[in-house]
Amino acid sequence: MSENTREKYTIGIDFGTGSARAVIINVKTGELKASAMYVYPHDTMTEQLPDGTKLGKDYALQHPMDYLEALEHAVPEAMELSGLRQEDIIGVAASFTSSTYLPIKKDLTPLCTLPEFASNPHAYVKLWKHHSPGKEADQINEVIKRRDEKWVRYYGNRITSEYPISKVLETLHCAPEVYRAADYYIEAGDWITAILCGKLQKSICAAGYKGFCNWKTGYPDREFYEELHPELANYVSEKLNYPMIGLGEEAGKVCGDAARRFGLPEGCAVAPFVIDSFAGVAGAGIDRTNIMLSVLGTSGCHLILSKEEHLVPGIFGMSYGGIYPGFFSYEAGQSALGDLFEWQVKNCMPEDYAQEAEKESKDSQQYLSEKAAELKPGETGIVALDWWNGNRSILLNSSLTGLMVGMTLQTKAEHIYRALLEATAFSTRKIVENYREHGVNIDAIYATGGISQKNMLLMQIYADVLNLPLRICGGMYGCARGSAAYAAVAAGKETGGYDDILEAARHIGLKSERRFFPNPENVEVYNKLYEEYSELHDHFGRGRDDVMQRLLAYRSEAVQKG
Amino acid sequence: MSENTREKYTIGIDFGTGSARAVIINVKTGELKASAMYVYPHDTMTEQLPDGTKLGKDYALQHPMDYLEALEHAVPEAMELSGLRQEDIIGVAASFTSSTYLPIKKDLTPLCTLPEFASNPHAYVKLWKHHSPGKEADQINEVIKRRDEKWVRYYGNRITSEYPISKVLETLHCAPEVYRAADYYIEAGDWITAILCGKLQKSICAAGYKGFCNWKTGYPDREFYEELHPELANYVSEKLNYPMIGLGEEAGKVCGDAARRFGLPEGCAVAPFVIDSFAGVAGAGIDRTNIMLSVLGTSGCHLILSKEEHLVPGIFGMSYGGIYPGFFSYEAGQSALGDLFEWQVKNCMPEDYAQEAEKESKDSQQYLSEKAAELKPGETGIVALDWWNGNRSILLNSSLTGLMVGMTLQTKAEHIYRALLEATAFSTRKIVENYREHGVNIDAIYATGGISQKNMLLMQIYADVLNLPLRICGGMYGCARGSAAYAAVAAGKETGGYDDILEAARHIGLKSERRFFPNPENVEVYNKLYEEYSELHDHFGRGRDDVMQRLLAYRSEAVQKG
Repeated sequence: MSENTREKYTIGIDFGTGSARAVIINVKTGELKASAMYVYPHDTMTEQLPDGTKLGKDYALQHPMDYLEALEHAVPEAMELSGLRQEDIIGVAASFTSSTYLPIKKDLTPLCTLPEFASNPHAYVKLWKHHSPGKEADQINEVIKRRDEKWVRYYGNRITSEYPISKVLETLHCAPEVYRAADYYIEAGDWITAILCGKLQKSICAAGYKGFCNWKTGYPDREFYEELHPELANYVSEKLNYPMIGLGEEAGKVCGDAARRFGLPEGCAVAPFVIDSFAGVAGAGIDRTNIMLSVLGTSGCHLILSKEEHLVPGIFGMSYGGIYPGFFSYEAGQSALGDLFEWQVKNCMPEDYAQEAEKESKDSQQYLSEKAAELKPGETGIVALDWWNGNRSILLNSSLTGLMVGMTLQTKAEHIYRALLEATAFSTRKIVENYREHGVNIDAIYATGGISQKNMLLMQIYADVLNLPLRICGGMYGCARGSAAYAAVAAGKETGGYDDILEAARHIGLKSERRFFPNPENVEVYNKLYEEYSELHDHFGRGRDDVMQRLLAYRSEAVQKG
Repeated sequence: MSENTREKYTIGIDFGTGSARAVIINVKTGELKASAMYVYPHDTMTEQLPDGTKLGKDYALQHPMDYLEALEHAVPEAMELSGLRQEDIIGVAASFTSSTYLPIKKDLTPLCTLPEFASNPHAYVKLWKHHSPGKEADQINEVIKRRDEKWVRYYGNRITSEYPISKVLETLHCAPEVYRAADYYIEAGDWITAILCGKLQKSICAAGYKGFCNWKTGYPDREFYEELHPELANYVSEKLNYPMIGLGEEAGKVCGDAARRFGLPEGCAVAPFVIDSFAGVAGAGIDRTNIMLSVLGTSGCHLILSKEEHLVPGIFGMSYGGIYPGFFSYEAGQSALGDLFEWQVKNCMPEDYAQEAEKESKDSQQYLSEKAAELKPGETGIVALDWWNGNRSILLNSSLTGLMVGMTLQTKAEHIYRALLEATAFSTRKIVENYREHGVNIDAIYATGGISQKNMLLMQIYADVLNLPLRICGGMYGCARGSAAYAAVAAGKETGGYDDILEAARHIGLKSERRFFPNPENVEVYNKLYEEYSELHDHFGRGRDDVMQRLLAYRSEAVQKG
């Protein structure tokens, strides 16, 4: 094969919560040529810093050098496994969790790597699930309400401890010296991209969403930040003072330092970072509007593209150009999904089932799934509200809790299991109907994420409850594959990539042949059960009976007494 | 010790669902001198008759000769263990489950022991939990409604498949030849008493209650029975044509046959049979009104004596003289109690807990109890409706099902366990408040039955939720002990017994020193949680949302399709 006709490849690196995965994908065929994984040596720090400094409640920090170590190991390993030459690689891109945020110096040095800040928790990466700034989130919501800030409508009308601004405000409250010493604050994904191409930029993907930088109106006013904290007045103008870059553009070329350090071809295209679940859209091969991508993991996330701008209440957020350039994107969330099924297995799986599963060499979920699959819709006699971890969409209320109704002395673990699966499907139907009621139509579901690879019963239940065809997409590396698609667009057609993310997604995205179609008989039963779910949903979720909130309050009081 | 001053004893025999227990009690001190148990050889027949004849769905039959075998074994064994002489025994009495019903010939021969009926299920004893005549119960309720029968107000306004009349009507539908061949229909407890003293009589205890023989108006009209089935016109006048006997009276003396067969002293007094849970009132030493006896076993039963007649809705039934002569008695029921806790242990007890319990040589309930005892009221975050087996009192609706609200990903098995314990206590509080609202006051709880001996956490929860002092009574043999008290009254003061059941109960009943007093701090929290329970109770139990009934209907449809 001559040089010119050799196949071209891109590298996608997905930075997850506990590890990073690098994949090398054939740009034309989508073939996964090689992959490699690297676990972060410091994992998530919830108890103490490397030097033994104790951490507060709900802290979740990471060490930024772990990400670079991951690049140092996973990229060369994948390259070696692939047997490819450096010149076969035309682009590289990272996907990353969002709201994973760190303070850096102008030369990209993370503050925590400076000796004077090594013992300061606020100098480290605050991981997305660093939930300690709860009071800061409350304070921010108060200010938003008092000032009647309009931009918050695009972000579900309420911000949480997860947002970068909550984390920064916490730093100002607890360690203002860190805030002052930081030249910039940055999403970890943007930091990685800057390391790769030697240019500091912010991807519109996170900035337009977790960063509140609206596509029409830009960042919130200086006065808003000032009212949160006087020192925050310079937050946007100084700490975020580096250029924005759109998805589909090229962030830069792999710089010499990065090439040497990570074994990447110097000068190959680097794409801006994409939020991990958002990268899954391209990874699933979605090339049009009206397909909902359901990312089904420990929690659930439902993404959809649209050509139109709609204000959809109860969703997590929306942006323009935040997933594909030229498209509006909408994101709704389910707080508990795989977590909920795991909860049952851990807390309510009878011993004889556990033993039987072991004998049959099945994991507990598989065992329960097979038993639950023998039941017909309606046969459990149970309807549940899947709010074990609160309700994100469409009620946006973290003080809601789980409910089950219909148990009898004949109820077995598989009845409960199936009822929980069904509850998450009803919950998704609420999200779908809410999208539709506000102008965002959906005609198919693409499912990706760990649960979609493992639980075929759940997939059929989704198809039946939603009365929509469902297709499993993305494979095991949906997010990494998606970032490989962005890398191909950054490379461009001339070098063997694509000029358009839709085209890239079509070639690089993975649609499996596993499809699920609604069974009309099941649809009919589930329509009836969904009515029951809806009645309970509104009764307990919309304030007719606030028993859940009161029980949480009583629990807190009891725990405080103890 | 001279003959005259030797201590006197009575024998109480409690016929339970799976076995009978004979106890020998010192009449003066209440000391348990000896006890013996005998398991029915045929147990409960749910699948087939002894000759292999298959049984229908929900059949629960017994073999009457098992009861006589129990007498043949348990009475002599207890006598031998006691070391007493025959002349030390002054009386004998049986307690028995009620609505355990059989057809007999004039000479007391059970029809099922005649060769021509040996293969006919309807000729056997239909145990209280023979629930197959569901359609018959529906039919009877329709006729009651159509005829506007007033007597049903005394029996909770609704009869169930459990009542003798449902069982007899089923026999007329399925095996009229059995009905025709029967000279009499009889409660198994009355049959035992007749065997003992050679005289056929019916105890007011069951007749006034399960037999609908009201103390003022007698049996329902002949027309009522005729409307159920033409052949039932003779039900009262022929099939029940044997005399009634009041509690506290003497049914007769042990006859020669019985003396020889069971090793009883010939000529000693026999008391009329008492329904097992009712016998528990004397067994618990209750000698006044306003004490509620809570019989806590697989299900719950709450009995109370009053000098006044009140029509209390939602209870199981009431009668006059049905427990103590001269007293009105009221019975309310909880469909699931121990059953509910067992349900959790069987279906929702995690493997690691089961293993840990085994390691610590604790049974699962004890293990869960200890963990749950570390939680404070309110700390579970969960409120449950304990309707896993429907709701008897105060809603009288078997189509209600269980509900739990408040679960989170942090909820553990002990949280659920404690919430279930609390739910049964809230359910009991509904019963107590309902009694009070209708004129029957309660100032103390006496608890008896298996659960009261084992679960001290539940006892404290009852005291706290009911805000009443609670005392454990009756010991392991509360019902048998209670029947020994009735035997002492049948014997009378002259022979060393008593003339009055109150006095007998005072001496023979057993009040343990285990008392539980409400903790004011817990009472306050439980008052708040009870409000939540009440709101859910009324919402789902009083027709605001009939989701439970609809889910049961969907389940039936699904099962039928299968």
